[in-house]
Amino acid sequence: MAHGAGGKATRRLIDGLFAPLLYESIPRHLGDAAFLEGNGRSLAVTTDGFVVTPLSFPGGSIGELAINGTINDLAVSGARPGAILASFVLEAGLRTEILEAEVRAMATAAKKAGVPIVGGDTKVVEHGKADQMYITTTGIGSPLPGLTLGPEAVRIGDRIILSGPIGDHGITILLARGELDLEAAICSDTRSVYPLVEALANAEGADLHWMRDPTRGGVATTLNELAIDCRLGIHLSEEEIPVRDQVRGACELLGLDPLHIANEGQFMAVVDASSADRMLAVLHETPGGEEAQIIGEIRDEPAGAVLAVSGYGGTRIVDMLVGDPLPRIC
Amino acid sequence: MAHGAGGKATRRLIDGLFAPLLYESIPRHLGDAAFLEGNGRSLAVTTDGFVVTPLSFPGGSIGELAINGTINDLAVSGARPGAILASFVLEAGLRTEILEAEVRAMATAAKKAGVPIVGGDTKVVEHGKADQMYITTTGIGSPLPGLTLGPEAVRIGDRIILSGPIGDHGITILLARGELDLEAAICSDTRSVYPLVEALANAEGADLHWMRDPTRGGVATTLNELAIDCRLGIHLSEEEIPVRDQVRGACELLGLDPLHIANEGQFMAVVDASSADRMLAVLHETPGGEEAQIIGEIRDEPAGAVLAVSGYGGTRIVDMLVGDPLPRIC
Repeated sequence: MAHGAGGKATRRLIDGLFAPLLYESIPRHLGDAAFLEGNGRSLAVTTDGFVVTPLSFPGGSIGELAINGTINDLAVSGARPGAILASFVLEAGLRTEILEAEVRAMATAAKKAGVPIVGGDTKVVEHGKADQMYITTTGIGSPLPGLTLGPEAVRIGDRIILSGPIGDHGITILLARGELDLEAAICSDTRSVYPLVEALANAEGADLHWMRDPTRGGVATTLNELAIDCRLGIHLSEEEIPVRDQVRGACELLGLDPLHIANEGQFMAVVDASSADRMLAVLHETPGGEEAQIIGEIRDEPAGAVLAVSGYGGTRIVDMLVGDPLPRIC
Repeated sequence: MAHGAGGKATRRLIDGLFAPLLYESIPRHLGDAAFLEGNGRSLAVTTDGFVVTPLSFPGGSIGELAINGTINDLAVSGARPGAILASFVLEAGLRTEILEAEVRAMATAAKKAGVPIVGGDTKVVEHGKADQMYITTTGIGSPLPGLTLGPEAVRIGDRIILSGPIGDHGITILLARGELDLEAAICSDTRSVYPLVEALANAEGADLHWMRDPTRGGVATTLNELAIDCRLGIHLSEEEIPVRDQVRGACELLGLDPLHIANEGQFMAVVDASSADRMLAVLHETPGGEEAQIIGEIRDEPAGAVLAVSGYGGTRIVDMLVGDPLPRIC
């Protein structure tokens, strides 16, 4: 299970097996989307499988997640989402109402984001050979002009902006499974972050250096990957990282670190220090960006690692997610 | 299960649920790929889930099928395959050798076809929540110049060319399951048909009116869909349809019609009568096209239906596949 959790084991699987065999020219840094060039036009493409359980949960459902997750992968790669394809694996005996609800959720999310669904496929497997349904979505987008994103664009002194509170999605899924005797008034954060990304790109696109959405493995895993890729150190101010009380409480009870919990409606941007305050203001003025924060900065040390500084001045190394405390959260 | 078989129930599911909800502008005729326009460039895109069981079988395996199936959907839509994305759902406990073998099969098939794999995703579900592995592939291609394909381009008098013998794939899968006390020296026909399609397009592209690969539901279902879409009648000369003896024998024993059996390496083209012989010659000269045949023609009657004429002059209506005698063949 750990190989699917988005942490260290996943990276070993990708770097050790998939990438060397599948990708003829291994991308130096694996991003959320790939870019294709041809006929004078560049395209961004991304694909993602969704296996979340339960299928629906406070704030969202698998169909809605499949649309917004793919939109967000394009958005944080610096692309405007243009079209989506959807492929379904359905378990025989799945109730029509459940299928219809998810198809409707996809249509609603796609319409809200203004991204057409242009094609799809359906396969049915025997009862017991899938868990109701799995959905794979593929997104195709156009690169936003004027952006040069990637770990190689990240500089010492750059600031890290986080779009809003973390951990809502992972904790919501955990509670929705009903395996814990724990309740909290909390919803998944699932949404399209494209409007926020577009606002930043329009305001100070040239000063945007890197973006990612901290999904599987959470903020900690995503920033560790960045630290490794750019060979610089990441300093986080722990008290600046927005975490709702319910999420913090659940994490304390369960011995989890909010930095490892998955998000579905947040993203992080590394930006030039000179523009950081202005970029934060742009997010605050954009609907859905009101809770954005500058949570840290890039330094030379500890190279390849992430350091969190607590409110009391204590520091700790924040590692990637190891193992999988929360399987199948997306 | 019938909803996944590619026949009548699948069409009801797509026309009744998916298309009205998902596709803002419902394509009048659902093809194997969708076309996107933008920035003066047109793109062909297609997505397909693969759930074949067993994972490997004489002549191929799920990974190889996932690459060639997607290449073929682009090819018969009249597009040159340009890039593939792959998304995996893996069952926890899947043996590494099996995963590696399929990843290798994908890499080999992609390399042979000259199409790069540019991205992917992996999800892991608990043991018992998938049948070893499912793969979804998405293909992106560029439309071949000079082609106008579609049921609306089909005319009375047009000829139907079939690229080679039918039923090999479906019967191979059926035998590979070992549930029947039946053996035959037969292999899946899985392969890329793009070289054959390209040869036709280069030779007489303007006279190519329609192409499809007869996968789930076989030749009968694919041609019934064409008959309905173009509102014309399709006459097949049954004795011209190439079927290997082993396939014919297995079908007779099992009470199956070879016209309903799935193929993974064949395609059909409807071509202008004036070019039909020349197109057939082009296929015969192209490696892999030696067994192509002209198997029928388009007439005005019976509108919306497919008629097969036997060697003795008898005729029968060939219906779409109903139910699913062979689930999970791709």
